Amino acid sequence: MLLYDTLDKIRGLDEGARSAAQIRLDSLTKPLGSLGRLEDIVKQVAGITGNARPSVDRKSIIIMCADNGVVEEGVSSCPKSVTATVTQNFTRGITGVCVLSAHAGAGIIVVDVGVDAKLEGVGILDRKIRRGTWNIAKGPAMTREEAIKGIETGIETVNELSRKGVQLLGTGEMGIGNTTTSSAMAAVFTGKSLETLVGRGSGLTDEGLCNKINVIRRAIEVNKPDASEPLDVLSKLGGFDIAGLTGCFIGAAANRIPILIDGFIASVAALTAVRLKPEIRQYLIASHGSAEPGSRAVLGEIGLEPLLMLGMRLGEGTGAAVAFHIIDAAFAAYDGMGTFDDARIEQYKPLGT
Amino acid sequence: MLLYDTLDKIRGLDEGARSAAQIRLDSLTKPLGSLGRLEDIVKQVAGITGNARPSVDRKSIIIMCADNGVVEEGVSSCPKSVTATVTQNFTRGITGVCVLSAHAGAGIIVVDVGVDAKLEGVGILDRKIRRGTWNIAKGPAMTREEAIKGIETGIETVNELSRKGVQLLGTGEMGIGNTTTSSAMAAVFTGKSLETLVGRGSGLTDEGLCNKINVIRRAIEVNKPDASEPLDVLSKLGGFDIAGLTGCFIGAAANRIPILIDGFIASVAALTAVRLKPEIRQYLIASHGSAEPGSRAVLGEIGLEPLLMLGMRLGEGTGAAVAFHIIDAAFAAYDGMGTFDDARIEQYKPLGT
Repeated sequence: MLLYDTLDKIRGLDEGARSAAQIRLDSLTKPLGSLGRLEDIVKQVAGITGNARPSVDRKSIIIMCADNGVVEEGVSSCPKSVTATVTQNFTRGITGVCVLSAHAGAGIIVVDVGVDAKLEGVGILDRKIRRGTWNIAKGPAMTREEAIKGIETGIETVNELSRKGVQLLGTGEMGIGNTTTSSAMAAVFTGKSLETLVGRGSGLTDEGLCNKINVIRRAIEVNKPDASEPLDVLSKLGGFDIAGLTGCFIGAAANRIPILIDGFIASVAALTAVRLKPEIRQYLIASHGSAEPGSRAVLGEIGLEPLLMLGMRLGEGTGAAVAFHIIDAAFAAYDGMGTFDDARIEQYKPLGT
Repeated sequence: MLLYDTLDKIRGLDEGARSAAQIRLDSLTKPLGSLGRLEDIVKQVAGITGNARPSVDRKSIIIMCADNGVVEEGVSSCPKSVTATVTQNFTRGITGVCVLSAHAGAGIIVVDVGVDAKLEGVGILDRKIRRGTWNIAKGPAMTREEAIKGIETGIETVNELSRKGVQLLGTGEMGIGNTTTSSAMAAVFTGKSLETLVGRGSGLTDEGLCNKINVIRRAIEVNKPDASEPLDVLSKLGGFDIAGLTGCFIGAAANRIPILIDGFIASVAALTAVRLKPEIRQYLIASHGSAEPGSRAVLGEIGLEPLLMLGMRLGEGTGAAVAFHIIDAAFAAYDGMGTFDDARIEQYKPLGT
């Protein structure tokens, strides 16, 4: 089966390429390590690609779009129809992620993995599993087979982009209600309290937030997910968008492509992927810490520190699009800076060493 | 006198332009405020320029270069000659800030405000006040007149760039020993202990760090600077580079140009400017939190939160160059995103409001 075959392919990073990148970094005219996380990015990408001089010029953001049955519990400040409208607007170039990814020189791939509408628009990949999940407050979101199909949709999307030569991936999502599903999964995976994890999404009132927490509590009680079994948690509490993104992280690791986590929802998908195969962690870059309170807890659980803390909570992949500039800057420095030989300097190291 | 005339010109932000920017931000297809600090940047730049649709396309980084007499106390892991070598390398395009500013589409202006060498190289502005300061461990770094001349050099540099149409400024510096002078000034301005403020600069050993702290303690004891008198602190403990940067912040505010603070040294210059005229704070953007431990303390004293936390400590203006991309992304979203009218969505606000 595609899922298990792909998981089997995943290996750790190439330590030879990583070391070669470290040697080049240390030859550049700067105090050792003084480019901080820019140096970490370069080494990680070298290790992922197995190439000490990799390129990250060809970039794409995959946006998984789906509806969530739990919206009928009043967990979002937006009506469900916004999922379909925004998904179609992705093809019109005017949403946040469109503008920011174009600015970063990245393409976007919009995947309908379960929007509750017939979508029209050139450029939306039709991979609809079903017209939205069931309501998690009443039972499982989807069957186990549907969860696997969602993940495999993500894997196939990445496989196709890999064939086309994409060198750096970002992730995004659109799905009204998906901070609810993500928070439910995050609570089960991390064991942290709902009060610390659940946020206001696109703009809930105090009362709305209280209702959202109660709905999630009910969803966990009704479904009794097994925290040690990622597919059980995903199929009972997740969404097709989260399943698709989980597949993107798995596919990126199998194809040895670095992949950026966008915000909170993508981080939950990344955690699901890492629980399925821990080596995937090494392929991930956390683009930003979302303003959703669960974001930091989930990234911490994976063991990642976000590159940016800009208080963004727009979703769509906007954080990944902004973080692309940081990755590009890291490689601009790595590729363009002079070496100590070029610069006629010998020092820049601790005295006495 | 240029310094006092320029300080007199500085006013607060244009609240009308700020409000107009807020109205446009709220018309874009996203939950209110969901672009986080990107929205703050847009509003700040609108308020600074007095224009609700400003441009930040024309960017420059001003790099103030000078030597510090205190280097004879062994406070740096680099020999003093590195100041002159790196300053000349700025004109060869291979240092970190050259590569990163070119990547961000920004020009660089290299100002020799006190390098202890005869510099050759097209593109270095010769504004040498003296060939390096005196040793602060033994007496004042410079006279009060020299401090004012250094500040006025910064003001004049910004005035000239303003005439040329520059719309966004960054700051950088090069001067072996300048984390020592900056730490000394930071300790006096903030009242915090040297142990919490002083870092390893370009790479001191434990022993070197201990010596650096002792040298700074001696410099403060010998000079007895008056913490309430910014020019006294600057002239006794600072450097020509810090004086020049202080002038850049003053000049930017007077010309209503947004200006990015680079790392620790620039943040101390920014604090000096803000102590001279508190309104200057509103014109400043903190590009990144440097790995130097004093960085956060000084930015906190000014009341700023850095945009980026990348563990960088290269100086030169490299953090400002990377942060330019964040500013550009903010305006890409602001200028390019569709409005609710374009997008056929009405909601995206809290239910019941």
